[in-house]
Amino acid sequence: MITINFITLFPERIESYFCDGLQKKAIEKGIFNIRVVYLRDFSLDKFGRVDDTIYGGGPGMLLKIEPIERALESLGESKGIVCLMSASGKVYNQEMANYLQSMDRNITLISGYFEGVDYRVVENFVDMELSLGEFVLSCGDLAALCIADSVVRLIPGFMGEAASLEDESHNVKGLLEYPQYTRPSKYKGWLVPEILLSGNHKEIKNWKENNKRRL
Amino acid sequence: MITINFITLFPERIESYFCDGLQKKAIEKGIFNIRVVYLRDFSLDKFGRVDDTIYGGGPGMLLKIEPIERALESLGESKGIVCLMSASGKVYNQEMANYLQSMDRNITLISGYFEGVDYRVVENFVDMELSLGEFVLSCGDLAALCIADSVVRLIPGFMGEAASLEDESHNVKGLLEYPQYTRPSKYKGWLVPEILLSGNHKEIKNWKENNKRRL
Repeated sequence: MITINFITLFPERIESYFCDGLQKKAIEKGIFNIRVVYLRDFSLDKFGRVDDTIYGGGPGMLLKIEPIERALESLGESKGIVCLMSASGKVYNQEMANYLQSMDRNITLISGYFEGVDYRVVENFVDMELSLGEFVLSCGDLAALCIADSVVRLIPGFMGEAASLEDESHNVKGLLEYPQYTRPSKYKGWLVPEILLSGNHKEIKNWKENNKRRL
Repeated sequence: MITINFITLFPERIESYFCDGLQKKAIEKGIFNIRVVYLRDFSLDKFGRVDDTIYGGGPGMLLKIEPIERALESLGESKGIVCLMSASGKVYNQEMANYLQSMDRNITLISGYFEGVDYRVVENFVDMELSLGEFVLSCGDLAALCIADSVVRLIPGFMGEAASLEDESHNVKGLLEYPQYTRPSKYKGWLVPEILLSGNHKEIKNWKENNKRRL
């Protein structure tokens, strides 16, 4: 069973995501596990400081190297693949999610804060530096949660029906899902396309093929 | 002051993100507000059901149109710009974050679940259909949080120092931040580039320009 480790300044944010829904059920079923590491526990001073000003000037603070190294060491071999959440990282995509799940190894997700982390962390401790996309977040916690979520949902048993995985958007690049409808078939004059109510499986299949949406 | 409304099946996940860190401080300072709407409160039946099977077949369930319309109606004019989190949506980027912040209007973020939402919701109630990127999440809650976070951090007063916003990655497309370092200058033989310790502002500036990282 893989464990996703989080190195974070806000453990409760991380934990609360897994306290509900499919995530909670999957953890209870033993499909994956999480471990939340509080970075301040690995501070070198009694104030729990983990950041400092930036060499060469510039606004804001950086996460220091020592607390991160010590947090990683506390995980030992169980750290698995180490990923740093960073606006400068490679943009994450489904291929990477598939790769991370297929490795069947633990994953450690380090949240960046402030202006980021001392670059020696990237050079020496990190296997993958990842960004969610071309936008900036106030810190790395949500990125870490997104990456964890996108990986664990691929683990067999997480989703109720495996078929859900086959049909979905992003498995075929560019070609997205067709519009989908549920009851009622008529709502305030807005109708579900008749063909979908017809029960004619061949025509329904054609309609779905022809109505895939593109970005 | 803008309010970010969330329409979700997991209110605690959303709330817990704003209970800590810069988000909490900004809410306390009156820089923005959040309102969490529990979709099941707008179910049409006593069981709180909000989903149903898909016309034309296919695995999984869709969110129904009525509970979403009723949840939106409960917000009245305060709903502002309505965004649906959807794997088929337009890929979110910093330009959209800037746009949403610059509108200075409320934003309502609807989390998708299961296979998504009845397409009539998209056609009739939604201003923007957004996806975080080319990867799939188990539901829309994290996407909604990411979009909220990326917008509120741009509101004046959210970040301590406004200068942090100017320098950062993604403001210049493709050109990313230079490596940054903090104390100690020497750690296990890993040194901070000497130029950054020199105090020579002109040379430091040149070094930063020449060491910007590209994706």
